[in-house]
Amino acid sequence: MTVTSPLGFEAAGVAAGIKASGALDLALVVNRGPLQNAAVVFTSNRAQANPILWSKQVAADGVVGAIVLNSGGANCFTGPEGFQVTHRTAEAVGEVLDISPGDVLVCSTGLIGDQLDGEVLAAGVVAAAAALATTGGEDAARAIMTTDSRPKTSVRSGDGWSIGGIAKGAGMLAPGLATMLVVITTDAALEHPALDAALRQATRVTFDRLDSDGCMSTNDQVSLLASGASGVTPDEADFRAVLTAVCRDLAEQLQADAEGASHDIAIEIIGAASELDAVEVGRSVARNNLFKAAIFGNDPNWGRVLAAIGTTSATFDPYDVDVSMNGVRVCSGGRPDRPREEVDLAPRAVHVLIDLRVGEASATILTNDLTHDYVHENSAYAS
Amino acid sequence: MTVTSPLGFEAAGVAAGIKASGALDLALVVNRGPLQNAAVVFTSNRAQANPILWSKQVAADGVVGAIVLNSGGANCFTGPEGFQVTHRTAEAVGEVLDISPGDVLVCSTGLIGDQLDGEVLAAGVVAAAAALATTGGEDAARAIMTTDSRPKTSVRSGDGWSIGGIAKGAGMLAPGLATMLVVITTDAALEHPALDAALRQATRVTFDRLDSDGCMSTNDQVSLLASGASGVTPDEADFRAVLTAVCRDLAEQLQADAEGASHDIAIEIIGAASELDAVEVGRSVARNNLFKAAIFGNDPNWGRVLAAIGTTSATFDPYDVDVSMNGVRVCSGGRPDRPREEVDLAPRAVHVLIDLRVGEASATILTNDLTHDYVHENSAYAS
Repeated sequence: MTVTSPLGFEAAGVAAGIKASGALDLALVVNRGPLQNAAVVFTSNRAQANPILWSKQVAADGVVGAIVLNSGGANCFTGPEGFQVTHRTAEAVGEVLDISPGDVLVCSTGLIGDQLDGEVLAAGVVAAAAALATTGGEDAARAIMTTDSRPKTSVRSGDGWSIGGIAKGAGMLAPGLATMLVVITTDAALEHPALDAALRQATRVTFDRLDSDGCMSTNDQVSLLASGASGVTPDEADFRAVLTAVCRDLAEQLQADAEGASHDIAIEIIGAASELDAVEVGRSVARNNLFKAAIFGNDPNWGRVLAAIGTTSATFDPYDVDVSMNGVRVCSGGRPDRPREEVDLAPRAVHVLIDLRVGEASATILTNDLTHDYVHENSAYAS
Repeated sequence: MTVTSPLGFEAAGVAAGIKASGALDLALVVNRGPLQNAAVVFTSNRAQANPILWSKQVAADGVVGAIVLNSGGANCFTGPEGFQVTHRTAEAVGEVLDISPGDVLVCSTGLIGDQLDGEVLAAGVVAAAAALATTGGEDAARAIMTTDSRPKTSVRSGDGWSIGGIAKGAGMLAPGLATMLVVITTDAALEHPALDAALRQATRVTFDRLDSDGCMSTNDQVSLLASGASGVTPDEADFRAVLTAVCRDLAEQLQADAEGASHDIAIEIIGAASELDAVEVGRSVARNNLFKAAIFGNDPNWGRVLAAIGTTSATFDPYDVDVSMNGVRVCSGGRPDRPREEVDLAPRAVHVLIDLRVGEASATILTNDLTHDYVHENSAYAS
């Protein structure tokens, strides 16, 4: 149940030979219409890969016919030759599908600084086009994997319409949608402005609140393609709710498969003066290596939580904050409360609740612990 | 050669019984005059330990007679009882030295949230006072160690005067002088305003540019005490230069002993539009876990450098930046230059040179790699 679950889409995933391992490495998702509306959000990193530079132009008019994605190389900081490879890939897709290359989004993921072979990609596009099927979403989900241990897919239905998605990403997950490629499809009949507003609202409270390791990628892209094939134009609020559910499901799958992680940590901030404050406070904890290493060691070290939030500019009194871990209030009013020994951090899921006690706003940031496996995987990535 | 090298100072380090191990855990440094001028800088974390709250009041008038420091507990988020312990410690020092408690700085380091025993500290102060000696600086340097593997000391001389220092700190090193206790003494005859200006200028370009793990402590304090015992009032520029040299020496010792680190990394930014830009760019690299893990693996992954600096707001073109690692230019103009295989990252010292190519400003940030030992030490700190 993936991007080919909604009506009007075909997909494929093939082994184009980009990865030396021979694994699937090129995916193609095609919108057969009748509508070809789309909305796309991109990494906010100023260092942007060639596919991002290209896709921003493609997305500008809100019309997208297909999206081609490769793993095995980020095509970032590869100069004008690298941009030519992206352009060539879009042209190959345009040719086999008989659509304008200017309606073809391109995504790449892998090591920065390595040149991709345009011939290999173009041949992969031909093979993918031949394999296109209304059941091809699973292969597409596999073809975009890098260090992911499993494909990520999600489907939710509305009243006569549905939304499906695939995602990859295991490291470099941070605000600005880091190292994450996501393709979401829908057969709902919606125009670009409605799609764009819904996608921005959904990503703001899902992918943008996943901060696995504080590192922002150069290649992130979340694309939403609408075929209109259901013939149904849903209520916009309904559509946003279902889209947000799909994005949250995929974000949680990304968190659960984060490189080397042994805990999935939800940092819930309540009692904040504003949502912005809540997000800032939550993110300061999510990015604190000492806190993250403590959770890896099943150590409910709440002092590191307070030391982290003390670095923010959010409105609160550091000496009047409550902190609970997995249901045990270890700190209240800035002082020790229940003994830390009562906290059980053995489960993979960890819930840290921080009550700032100044307002009504709240937010939850998702992160992971800092583990030996994280260090190992990321010290050996290039090899 | 420590805080007792300049004339007019006595120090001691004793085992007061705060640490269960029986190691030295309480240090006392006394300024015998004739002057008792001082300047102090504190952590910029809003979550501040009780000794910070106390010492800020003490430092306000620029007069300090003594400083007492304990390891074995941070006395942070321990409520009013914790503040009473700090107050009691200062009173004990005032009593044995016959000076006002209001002229006694207090520093603590260790786990947040554990209550210290005021009786134990007071007895330790009595023992330390009995052990005071003009050769006691080495013991004082040892008594403030936590996870430090060795004491940090430094001495530099001017023309007829000198500056000596001791420091502790191995983790939580970040801007705002994180988890760092530093005591610097001088026998130069200088008033508070000159000391204060010199200390702020020196820490700004030394301790503030050490960012081992991006985590800011609740307990940092750098104190500069002047006895005037040399009878010499140095030229202020000379004094600043020597003070900066002592601070840089201590900062580099802190970096070299950072928890679990296997590389000392100097990130030098040149060609920046402003010093502020250079610092922001350097810090973004120093805080990037993917970059730090790559260096641990001896992987010259320059893509992660560019991905990190792309998240800053500094003025530069991400596609016109040069990056060298240990003398090999691996990226020029935002494209691959020399093969990464030419970079030798086997030595502990790593030099990353980033030329932003837009201006004349520069700065160097010191950091460490992200290692298995860092994860291990910080996942087991509380145990």
